[in-house]
Amino acid sequence: MIENPYYTDEFHGDYELIGIGQLDLEEGGSIPDCQLAVATFGVLNEAKDNAILIPTWYSGTHQIWRDVYIGPDHALNPEKYFIVCIDQIGSGLSVSPHNAAGANAGIAMSKFPHVRIGDNVVAQERLLREHFGIERLALVTGGSMGAQQTYEWAVRFPDKVLRAAPIAGTAQNTPGDFLIAEAMREAIQSSPGWNGGEYTSNEQVVDGLIRQAHIWAIVGFSTEFWKHEVWRAMEFDSKEAFLSGFLEPYFTAMDPNALLTQSWAWQRGDVARHTGGDLAAALGRITAKTFVMPIDEDQLFPVRDCVPEQELIKNSELRVVEDTLGHLGLFGVSPTYMPQIDRHLGDLLDIEV
Amino acid sequence: MIENPYYTDEFHGDYELIGIGQLDLEEGGSIPDCQLAVATFGVLNEAKDNAILIPTWYSGTHQIWRDVYIGPDHALNPEKYFIVCIDQIGSGLSVSPHNAAGANAGIAMSKFPHVRIGDNVVAQERLLREHFGIERLALVTGGSMGAQQTYEWAVRFPDKVLRAAPIAGTAQNTPGDFLIAEAMREAIQSSPGWNGGEYTSNEQVVDGLIRQAHIWAIVGFSTEFWKHEVWRAMEFDSKEAFLSGFLEPYFTAMDPNALLTQSWAWQRGDVARHTGGDLAAALGRITAKTFVMPIDEDQLFPVRDCVPEQELIKNSELRVVEDTLGHLGLFGVSPTYMPQIDRHLGDLLDIEV
Repeated sequence: MIENPYYTDEFHGDYELIGIGQLDLEEGGSIPDCQLAVATFGVLNEAKDNAILIPTWYSGTHQIWRDVYIGPDHALNPEKYFIVCIDQIGSGLSVSPHNAAGANAGIAMSKFPHVRIGDNVVAQERLLREHFGIERLALVTGGSMGAQQTYEWAVRFPDKVLRAAPIAGTAQNTPGDFLIAEAMREAIQSSPGWNGGEYTSNEQVVDGLIRQAHIWAIVGFSTEFWKHEVWRAMEFDSKEAFLSGFLEPYFTAMDPNALLTQSWAWQRGDVARHTGGDLAAALGRITAKTFVMPIDEDQLFPVRDCVPEQELIKNSELRVVEDTLGHLGLFGVSPTYMPQIDRHLGDLLDIEV
Repeated sequence: MIENPYYTDEFHGDYELIGIGQLDLEEGGSIPDCQLAVATFGVLNEAKDNAILIPTWYSGTHQIWRDVYIGPDHALNPEKYFIVCIDQIGSGLSVSPHNAAGANAGIAMSKFPHVRIGDNVVAQERLLREHFGIERLALVTGGSMGAQQTYEWAVRFPDKVLRAAPIAGTAQNTPGDFLIAEAMREAIQSSPGWNGGEYTSNEQVVDGLIRQAHIWAIVGFSTEFWKHEVWRAMEFDSKEAFLSGFLEPYFTAMDPNALLTQSWAWQRGDVARHTGGDLAAALGRITAKTFVMPIDEDQLFPVRDCVPEQELIKNSELRVVEDTLGHLGLFGVSPTYMPQIDRHLGDLLDIEV
């Protein structure tokens, strides 16, 4: 158990830890006491039909959704909907290698099992049903790994998902994206301080976390972002200052094993696991009204990887989000980003299903 | 002095080491005995007006040009032209950190000075003039860093360059590309065996060289290359086999300091150094008939970074090369690649200037 101040209320605001008991995993092994960090916004109505689920992305938590995406001025309006953000397993807030203790002591640090996108979705479904009594979701939406989980939800539990909005992610991860995540993993694992996952503080792995941040810099942002010095809008004086003042500290605060747990799942996101590798059959299961929302400058999940998936979903539309930032447009720092998200999600929520 | 079997005749075929004496460098310091590896093809005519210069790219040498680009069936036809490939400083064949000895003993390994694109071009011009008596070039062409040197030639010595064909490179490096090279540098420099540049064998740095290869895998090839498993055409069974059988051994044979010497120059390629930062003024100096030849799927030097430069060159055309491989299309493994190169270079050489 490593005390990491980043994964506390101070940095992440109010959230609740909700236990769903033992979670058996697709790859074998189990999490004896699966605790999920949950933040909710708004009130569940009596019919329990106003619930929206948001699964989180790599390195992200409910925090960014609360601060950027959710509010009375947004489509994700807590005055109308009951919005549930569930931090994924390995997020650092939910059960994760560095915080595994008590009943989970046997899976601490390097002993933490491999967790898949599907495991997260199974855990979330159980939590929503057992804890909140929610059987159907008005919307599932998420970015990046959150989009992977959104697709997984829509394929695995088609009757439970009325609308789906995967943002900047795919249903079946591409080999190029797998290799991008692998390069990030190697940056962390090559740090001498990583020690096979048995460091005693994330500070021992800071060099690896910084190199991982620098790989994010080149694939998470577009070349146009760097060329047009968009970071100036965030009040930095140089790209180096932006790296050292924003992207590096963002990652160095985090737990290395937590990031590795997430990226392992990210690399293997694939709804076709349900259909013996047949992606068309898997996406054909989706009954949710679906808006596929790639970001035009995204290098991790390019539009051209998202379009063929959208075309396999019966009740779907392609809604491309324009953002020079690329994949990390998900941070919502561009002033033109959230208006697009709100318009698309608003349109989707307005559709009767 | 490290004996590296990769940098020998056995791997690189016939080449000549030609000394041009002391080379004073733009960043200060000098190379006391600047030896350049040179491979020539064809015969210099009496008028000395049939010479073509090819400067080399990062990690590449004259070998790839000899094996792929040059021949009687190619535009770069040694039966017609006298083709001079000069391996760049730090290429491992020309003077480089690991082979600096004798008069260069003082600049061995970590003491090797910073060398710029401009230093290479000054050295090449001296060599061509003093050794071959060549005062004008029918063509300068090169890929990637070779394109950077091509631009530098056309701007620095406009009267000496009749035609220029920069392939997959820019005249002024972009900040995004700088950061890509920086991530590659960090992969090497973070290897414990690198030891601040004072390793005793490149094998001590093999982990860093492999991680550097993996960053090449994600930015040097396009996502479409991986998605469509184009490596199957090279007779590999999996992307992992392609990495371990092709891209990793390609780089692990090389000298880490040699790669770092090259990438330092790559990061800072900028013809606007001649004009106080005014790129339009620098490119306005070019009198060569110029074909700007980006590769459509290139992530390092995207077409959209090359077009604005081409538009600043008076006597120029944009000739986009189509190749799913992306930047590493330069290897020429795609059967449709060389026909395009030959067509464009053939057209260019056919133009009377």
